Amino acid sequence: MNEKLKIYKIGGGIIDSHEELHQFLVDFAKINSRKILIHGGGKGASQNLKKLGIEPKMVNGRRITDKPTLDVVVAFYAGTTNKQIVSTLQKFDCNALGLSGADANVIQGKIRPVKEIDYGFVADINRNSINTDFIKLIIENNITPVFCAITHDKNGNLLNTNADTISACLSKSLANFYDVELHYCFDKIGVLKDVNDENSLIPVINKTDYQELLKSNIIHDGMIPKLENAFSVIDAGVKKVVLEHPKNISNSIKTELIS
Amino acid sequence: MNEKLKIYKIGGGIIDSHEELHQFLVDFAKINSRKILIHGGGKGASQNLKKLGIEPKMVNGRRITDKPTLDVVVAFYAGTTNKQIVSTLQKFDCNALGLSGADANVIQGKIRPVKEIDYGFVADINRNSINTDFIKLIIENNITPVFCAITHDKNGNLLNTNADTISACLSKSLANFYDVELHYCFDKIGVLKDVNDENSLIPVINKTDYQELLKSNIIHDGMIPKLENAFSVIDAGVKKVVLEHPKNISNSIKTELIS
Repeated sequence: MNEKLKIYKIGGGIIDSHEELHQFLVDFAKINSRKILIHGGGKGASQNLKKLGIEPKMVNGRRITDKPTLDVVVAFYAGTTNKQIVSTLQKFDCNALGLSGADANVIQGKIRPVKEIDYGFVADINRNSINTDFIKLIIENNITPVFCAITHDKNGNLLNTNADTISACLSKSLANFYDVELHYCFDKIGVLKDVNDENSLIPVINKTDYQELLKSNIIHDGMIPKLENAFSVIDAGVKKVVLEHPKNISNSIKTELIS
Repeated sequence: MNEKLKIYKIGGGIIDSHEELHQFLVDFAKINSRKILIHGGGKGASQNLKKLGIEPKMVNGRRITDKPTLDVVVAFYAGTTNKQIVSTLQKFDCNALGLSGADANVIQGKIRPVKEIDYGFVADINRNSINTDFIKLIIENNITPVFCAITHDKNGNLLNTNADTISACLSKSLANFYDVELHYCFDKIGVLKDVNDENSLIPVINKTDYQELLKSNIIHDGMIPKLENAFSVIDAGVKKVVLEHPKNISNSIKTELIS
């Protein structure tokens, strides 16, 4: 049995709330196992783009990252947000190390090929994009990696990258060396039987349960891609995927997905 | 005899010139020994402050770092500039790792006490501020640290910090473990006997030479504090301090200061 490694992903909502982020980092710092944090960007990057007179470009809900947009996104994700999180974790005695994918070549992506849409400076990555040697070196020295959602192509280009995808690729690649739990923190408390009733939280779902829930139409809409992704991560060797609200990481209110 | 470690500091001028920075990084990547890079900020931070409607505040030539200024400086130094340098070095097969002082608690400063002037979020640091264990871990794994001029106080505050001071403190603290050469890259080719004649470059100056040069008034004005600082670094155990133009790091046009 390998050592446990907990990987947490937090998204835009919590980054935008100073108080919620602070409380999450207090709780995260207390986690008594090897751990990794991945953070998305939040609204700050779009706000800075507007202040600088650069109109955010979205197609089908996805950001188009041209060069001026990339510069603002790198500054905000790898600079502002990442260093704020790292310095706050240091205050709470969690020895955090902020990373973009360019640092120590830790995530080497490929710029997304132009098909119908030119997404600009955006990376496609997979589990083989991860420099696991470096991450193991850092983790084994009791340092906690904190990833922003920027990678690179080793050809001098920084690339905007989906934070959920980074979390999944990190988890899959590190499952070769650790018993990995991937925690997706989002704006719900987990999977609910009735989306309007928080008392209907389902605490554990295995793959058989999931098929039943699908058949009986209890799970639908936006939750299906999240669960499909989670079970594909589990199929790749990750022990457990947890869906939870960031305010609940230190209690038992969550949905655990297992094989 | 310890292993050699070359520490390079580059300042604002070269950061502002895309071509000069690129050439410097090509040359730096080729240096065939353990090495560290420290970079200042350049004019980009001030330009971004203006774009965002924040007037840069200077007293006696020194920036006053209030909170809105700090946010822009962190974004530009730790985000934009640091990640541009790291991704470019990766392109040239130099395995760079970008760092602020908060990352892995590598430089823990103290916020400067308010006396006549309140400098705001600015750090005072000394040789004991440096986490040499982490730097050794990184260097011994053939990774090249790239420092921006941001540190922290381990109380959740990021702090603007003088890049020359960071370079001197890193060099002094690492002199316990390596034969350190500190290279200050600046806008001159070295120490000149006649400031108007580049053919009057002095290739080597030891402490006795320096006293002679001072007595005969050959060195004066802005060069004196640079040399005083350099010899104090040498007194603290650093083998050599080199003053040179960043375009000359791969040739012999430079002034070497030795004990």
